[in-house]
Amino acid sequence: MTFLRNTQVANLPTNPLRRIFEQAKPGMTNLASGHPNPVYCDHRGLEVATALAAKEQRSWRYGASAGDAELIDALPPWQAPVGGASTLVTSGAQQGIFLACQCLGAPGQTILVPDPVYPAVLSVAVLLGVKVRTYCGESPATALQDLARLMQGHDDICAVYVLPTFSNPTGETWRSEDRDALLELCAQSKVAVIEDDPYRELWFDAKPPERLIERAASLGLTTEVLSLGSLSKIVAPGLRIGWIQGNPDLIAAMTAARQAMDLQPNALAQRVACHYLQSGALERHLNHLRPQYASAHATLTAPLRAAGFSRLKVHGGMFVMPELPSGISVAGLAEHLRSHELLVAPGDAFSIDKSRPSNRLRLCFAALPPADLHRAGETLVAAVEAWR
Amino acid sequence: MTFLRNTQVANLPTNPLRRIFEQAKPGMTNLASGHPNPVYCDHRGLEVATALAAKEQRSWRYGASAGDAELIDALPPWQAPVGGASTLVTSGAQQGIFLACQCLGAPGQTILVPDPVYPAVLSVAVLLGVKVRTYCGESPATALQDLARLMQGHDDICAVYVLPTFSNPTGETWRSEDRDALLELCAQSKVAVIEDDPYRELWFDAKPPERLIERAASLGLTTEVLSLGSLSKIVAPGLRIGWIQGNPDLIAAMTAARQAMDLQPNALAQRVACHYLQSGALERHLNHLRPQYASAHATLTAPLRAAGFSRLKVHGGMFVMPELPSGISVAGLAEHLRSHELLVAPGDAFSIDKSRPSNRLRLCFAALPPADLHRAGETLVAAVEAWR
Repeated sequence: MTFLRNTQVANLPTNPLRRIFEQAKPGMTNLASGHPNPVYCDHRGLEVATALAAKEQRSWRYGASAGDAELIDALPPWQAPVGGASTLVTSGAQQGIFLACQCLGAPGQTILVPDPVYPAVLSVAVLLGVKVRTYCGESPATALQDLARLMQGHDDICAVYVLPTFSNPTGETWRSEDRDALLELCAQSKVAVIEDDPYRELWFDAKPPERLIERAASLGLTTEVLSLGSLSKIVAPGLRIGWIQGNPDLIAAMTAARQAMDLQPNALAQRVACHYLQSGALERHLNHLRPQYASAHATLTAPLRAAGFSRLKVHGGMFVMPELPSGISVAGLAEHLRSHELLVAPGDAFSIDKSRPSNRLRLCFAALPPADLHRAGETLVAAVEAWR
Repeated sequence: MTFLRNTQVANLPTNPLRRIFEQAKPGMTNLASGHPNPVYCDHRGLEVATALAAKEQRSWRYGASAGDAELIDALPPWQAPVGGASTLVTSGAQQGIFLACQCLGAPGQTILVPDPVYPAVLSVAVLLGVKVRTYCGESPATALQDLARLMQGHDDICAVYVLPTFSNPTGETWRSEDRDALLELCAQSKVAVIEDDPYRELWFDAKPPERLIERAASLGLTTEVLSLGSLSKIVAPGLRIGWIQGNPDLIAAMTAARQAMDLQPNALAQRVACHYLQSGALERHLNHLRPQYASAHATLTAPLRAAGFSRLKVHGGMFVMPELPSGISVAGLAEHLRSHELLVAPGDAFSIDKSRPSNRLRLCFAALPPADLHRAGETLVAAVEAWR
């Protein structure tokens, strides 16, 4: 391509998940995608909000680059800005990840990301010319050890990317004490934290620990936290409404960058989100959603536990990333399952260090109705039995 | 700002137009903004389209990064892809400008932009670390001379940005022969063309010449044209629906870049746009809009012509950029007009070379009703008379 002169664009990695999604055929049972089932969408509430938005002139006009002030005010209490933080409305959390990495990292600097990782973060780094080094994402304890080692004496490290609550892909949640240790470490090393937190409200039995940005304020730490939220997993991904909160100077810089990139968030979608939130529909919807997700997780994992899968426990979110019973190869199993019309995401799709093959699968329990989840669990178990 | 490590973000210029807009107070007559008057918005048609979109599951779900295929098919015939080109739906034409500059230009390479220019292009270049050199944007003839000189022997030039139809800020339109000369020059120099074309359908009496991307195909030229369109000026800016057309390989690269930046276009807004276009409402709306804009232009410019302003003729679009009668300073006049509650955009807001003060004003005739336009024209004339 003569005219594609930007090598950062030319070198963008293909998201391995997208390659898996391409294998999805009609009729297949899909545990690989992270797309919530439409039955978990409050279509009626959204239709009401949309009808209100459609009647307003401001839904059709230019607006502020930082987003609709009324929408920012309408964000739920668990997303209230803390410690003097500002809020910028983004086109989904993905734009927030991009803006945060862009502002915090000059080209050539390093961002620390977990391995396994949500792969879209890697594309962001390549596009920005920012380097990536990995910390072990298997557990918060190993992550903290790795991060302490990596930050020591490396002043090219500008930020840590972390998904501390019902993580994608692992489903793992950082406890309060792990969060405190992370925040203190980053304060000492003057490394900013990018907190990616779209699954927080999908808890099963108990609310997760405070957001990192809140916890830093509670502890009076100087840690610079940019915290990302989104309506994609709790209202509708097609709305493309996310937000980023942090230090007002950083938010102002990100607002200027986004103005150059796409001027402003979608006015119509912001008004729909604003009416939806103002109506109180979100809390009702979440109250309805949480037990369904808890039950979906239980339905999928019960047969797996009996068959020797481990790491099945999560406390919320949409994903579980079980470790296979010993002696089973992930690649072979995924292939076998595909021939039985069941699509799963092998752990390697989220690995950065490809030298250690993953023995885990990421399974999304939010995409399928209970009967399908039950059948999928049984197919998985049967496949493992056949292998033995 | 310790944590704002990206100097390209830190150095983003403030768009001088935004500083002018901040001076707008309620009750002021605003000829400075390029925001169409809500009376020119087909609210009824949009409400109907929105009601249809709200009932569809796909309005709320994830979709393709390149955009909704049905929307791309529903684009009007004057935006049909030509010569095997592909289409990518963008969040307004601004995202198209960003993606085009990002893909075509590696950091350190040069993009040629007109002076005077639509200032948001300059922010894009700073953010990408791409250099800008200017060509004279006063007329296509001077532009062509300058471009030929600039391209000779400079192999760091990757693209020319041009707004050839009812330009912002000048209102100028490139004739067919000027377009041909530009395309041939760029083919010879292997320089890509970024054709920014959001005003094309707002013609007064006659359709403008073919788009550059179409003309290149008609002439069988090898010129690489990336052509940007938008619904912002003809349907509603709040929808944030634009598109970029060009060589499928370049479009694929831009699609990968946008996927890293914000995943995909807004699903709801795409469905609204799709239903609006499929209903035939756009052609009806444009038939209604064109004579109103022609008449708005005539109303504003008639008194100016009599008072010695020149360069008042445009054939469509939303802007006219008159030259003041000799002896009048733009800055002084703009200041004086502001004290008379009339806001105008001085030509300098669009100038890159600040050493030659502009003696022009950009006036938007799409933002005000006829009575206000008439009064604004008279206020302008009275201000010039008072100055003499």
